[in-house]
Amino acid sequence: MLESALTFSHTLLKQSIVLGDTVIDATVGNGGDTVLLAKLVGKQGKVYGFDVQEQALNTTKEKLLFTGLSEQVHLFQQGHETVGKVLGENEQISGAIFNLGYLPKSDKTVITKGETTLAALEALLPHLRKGALILLVVYYGHEGGEEEKEAVLTFAAQLPQTNYHVLQYNFINQKNQPPFLLAIEKK
Amino acid sequence: MLESALTFSHTLLKQSIVLGDTVIDATVGNGGDTVLLAKLVGKQGKVYGFDVQEQALNTTKEKLLFTGLSEQVHLFQQGHETVGKVLGENEQISGAIFNLGYLPKSDKTVITKGETTLAALEALLPHLRKGALILLVVYYGHEGGEEEKEAVLTFAAQLPQTNYHVLQYNFINQKNQPPFLLAIEKK
Repeated sequence: MLESALTFSHTLLKQSIVLGDTVIDATVGNGGDTVLLAKLVGKQGKVYGFDVQEQALNTTKEKLLFTGLSEQVHLFQQGHETVGKVLGENEQISGAIFNLGYLPKSDKTVITKGETTLAALEALLPHLRKGALILLVVYYGHEGGEEEKEAVLTFAAQLPQTNYHVLQYNFINQKNQPPFLLAIEKK
Repeated sequence: MLESALTFSHTLLKQSIVLGDTVIDATVGNGGDTVLLAKLVGKQGKVYGFDVQEQALNTTKEKLLFTGLSEQVHLFQQGHETVGKVLGENEQISGAIFNLGYLPKSDKTVITKGETTLAALEALLPHLRKGALILLVVYYGHEGGEEEKEAVLTFAAQLPQTNYHVLQYNFINQKNQPPFLLAIEKK
């Protein structure tokens, strides 16, 4: 009944993104979110997807091809901290999603890091249209995860409340460090 | 777009409670939640409502009369820590809601307290059917609020993960101590 952090991130995407929107998949990974975003924005919309791993992008390209969703998706084999260079100066986005940690069933030493995650967040903020959401599903049970978690939480908690709502959605009685969700909404 | 803790508590009640259910309004207050619960359970269902303040119960009785929902609601002018005496030994509930703090526009010295809140929670746990939710909207900006907040958080975080999911839904960048939501789900 209570949705997991991952499922709740999808619920929020479905509630906030409409046909024709421009959105960001900051960590393409196995392409699950990319496919969802591509469906939500439709052929009139745009999804910019980022991942440093070639394997991830190849898997995702195949998924998009099979589902007929390639047209609206632009994939970049580069870190999400470069998002500011990909977006046009005045380009507005309605959503962005990050899955922080490592790519499941892949090289566990390739992880997202606080420094580049914060750089991506800083670059995204000026592009948010009113009501836009940045969602971060934060996995932190792996080596290096705790540092990134702290960096992201500190950054998010300091965003001015006049411009942003920042929600943490977190299961607090579990020993196995399940991911939590951070949602940043532009007012 | 992101729902406040209060609105999200209502969303969860609407998702989880169906006609014929038995539910608890642990802090009747101005009766807003009582009316919602009475609608959700219908005439086949039962709402047990608790409040120590006569004024609160009178306002609520009037609201229920106007909306034709009196039949399924049983109000008790007593603290929610007595809930175990009101429920039948094997009576199962599908939901309970607490608004912790004081009654808006009323005597601010009459507040819920950690000790009695925990007593109520302890009494409710054995009555939860599978999938049942206990929701606590925790206001803590008033005198005494911080102690109750800590007591409730500590209690909830220690509930065994084999039997319960415990979610905290919390806006983390606001200076004015907005309420947060705790949701306890019986697995």
